[in-house]
Amino acid sequence: MASFTILGAGMMGTAFAWPLSDRGHTVRLVGTHLDRELVSSIRESGRHPKLGLSVPDGVTAHQLEELEPVLRGSDALVLGVSSAGVRWAARRVAPYLASGTPLGMVAKGLEWNGSRLELLPDVFLEELAAAGSAARDVAPVAVAGPCIAGELARRVPTAVVLASRSLGAAEAFAELVRAAYYHAFSSDELVGVEVCAALKNAYAMGMAMPAGEHARAGGAPGSIAFHNLEAAVFAQSIHEMQRVIRLLGGNPHSAAWLPGVGDLDVTCNGGRTGRFGELLGRGLTPDQARERMAGATLECLEILRSLESALATYTARGELAEGELPLARHLFRRALHGVVEDWPLSKFFGSGGPLS
Amino acid sequence: MASFTILGAGMMGTAFAWPLSDRGHTVRLVGTHLDRELVSSIRESGRHPKLGLSVPDGVTAHQLEELEPVLRGSDALVLGVSSAGVRWAARRVAPYLASGTPLGMVAKGLEWNGSRLELLPDVFLEELAAAGSAARDVAPVAVAGPCIAGELARRVPTAVVLASRSLGAAEAFAELVRAAYYHAFSSDELVGVEVCAALKNAYAMGMAMPAGEHARAGGAPGSIAFHNLEAAVFAQSIHEMQRVIRLLGGNPHSAAWLPGVGDLDVTCNGGRTGRFGELLGRGLTPDQARERMAGATLECLEILRSLESALATYTARGELAEGELPLARHLFRRALHGVVEDWPLSKFFGSGGPLS
Repeated sequence: MASFTILGAGMMGTAFAWPLSDRGHTVRLVGTHLDRELVSSIRESGRHPKLGLSVPDGVTAHQLEELEPVLRGSDALVLGVSSAGVRWAARRVAPYLASGTPLGMVAKGLEWNGSRLELLPDVFLEELAAAGSAARDVAPVAVAGPCIAGELARRVPTAVVLASRSLGAAEAFAELVRAAYYHAFSSDELVGVEVCAALKNAYAMGMAMPAGEHARAGGAPGSIAFHNLEAAVFAQSIHEMQRVIRLLGGNPHSAAWLPGVGDLDVTCNGGRTGRFGELLGRGLTPDQARERMAGATLECLEILRSLESALATYTARGELAEGELPLARHLFRRALHGVVEDWPLSKFFGSGGPLS
Repeated sequence: MASFTILGAGMMGTAFAWPLSDRGHTVRLVGTHLDRELVSSIRESGRHPKLGLSVPDGVTAHQLEELEPVLRGSDALVLGVSSAGVRWAARRVAPYLASGTPLGMVAKGLEWNGSRLELLPDVFLEELAAAGSAARDVAPVAVAGPCIAGELARRVPTAVVLASRSLGAAEAFAELVRAAYYHAFSSDELVGVEVCAALKNAYAMGMAMPAGEHARAGGAPGSIAFHNLEAAVFAQSIHEMQRVIRLLGGNPHSAAWLPGVGDLDVTCNGGRTGRFGELLGRGLTPDQARERMAGATLECLEILRSLESALATYTARGELAEGELPLARHLFRRALHGVVEDWPLSKFFGSGGPLS
């Protein structure tokens, strides 16, 4: 059995403690500077206040100051930080990370560097090198696919994809973390998996808009509720994920299984993203909708902003045609700029058929 | 503008009258022997009792005895009958069908003939020939993709696929029926489209089971409700649709857009199929669940029975391995034979990655 450090004591980082602990690993959870109260709560009562659960027996929680000794005593690392924390985490772990450490990342996102969209595992490695890390053979493994943290921590049967540029690293990490209810499939399709993980929040927001439009039109929830439109938006979301994957040189089929279809489905089932999309559908402006969400972090808007900048550049460079990704461009206008316009359904699906 | 006959006055056949009428076509709706009361209601009050709506102005309804004169006066035909009615419909229209008539079919299914799974448009053509029809150049166009009849008849924005072995026939039919809210994409991927249309009821039933299992475990609806499991089942459903499409010689990508992803999503949103799956998830036996559904037609069971027979034969012939389609085989055992067993999640996704 191994000794794991989880850096980041938010919902998903902490939920990862369940399969690790159930597999018999030692788990030490280290909070970031944003997690001080969460760590204090676990240290005092064993309870994670946001998950509403006590962490498994034997899992210990630590404030950030203890990162060095904890990490030096670990064989494996899970980065439970959000996309905004990836560079920070790389710098924090750089001095203590041993060569060949198995390393998983739950952060989801694409970073726009002004010239191209970068995958977070690549961003992590760049920052690790820039921080002078001596660690070699570290191949970050992205944890993706449909996984609501509160369900994982309740041991609901869950299937995820662990993707890395190194299939060996992905499979080795999967072998470490698989549990009876945690089915981990390994993949070297890092581009496809990461594009889906990043874009799903934006598209899930779009899929929630029709329910809001139905409500705005005076409809009640039920079997007639703009589901036809929602389903068309779902299908086009997969189509556009495939296009962005190809744009970044990946395998478009990633969108057709857990990372795309599965994660989009789960993201639509409640949560902030869906609520925000529904408010837009009801006719609120983006400002009004954000106000109603009372300060919640909206990853859907962060990724839309990155994607809007990126697509402008890719389109200007001729790598993408103006007419491509009509759904994404519609979401930019509605969710970022408050433009009122009809759904561009007739522009969906490009040539009218599936990608070959 | 054209003159359309719709044969079959059920929900979907009748709903087709809306886009046709809005495009300015003449529409005459002819009921089958099962539709007598529906037709009488429309003739008396203009109202379709199951849709709960009055049909558009100018649409006339006719009992089956008027089929001949109505059809002889039409340029185009929509078959609104169910899969069980396709052979019957072919025999009924055979004497009057003119060569080259544009012909759409809303029936969804695969017919197991003891040796292979047959597509309904092919079944229709066989039966037409057997009935001695003199019509030539009739290329049936399958109408597929996410479309709830009650939403189409309320002009909810809808995107569908019109597929035929002849792309020209598909596009010509699409051009006839497109309306402002009815976005029809043409395709010659008849195998892929029809496999998805047929299998989606079976897989949508499977996707509804986790919600029932959550309820059985004492959970309330909400953001934590076995969504992780539902999403894994969704992704595997697409994966298995792709496998069956390849088995029948089609293009697996059909599963990744409207016919697969889109139609599965819409089928999960309420309706009989989802209700039946939820009851099974709650722990009812198939007999108990059917009893609760009080005589409703369950297409999901019909296609599961066909598929079970078919897979046994394809597997015995070595065209499919025993370990393939683990979700379908799980659904046979649970929904047809009442076997209680865990989800085979570790067997999902074959090699662990997407199809290439």
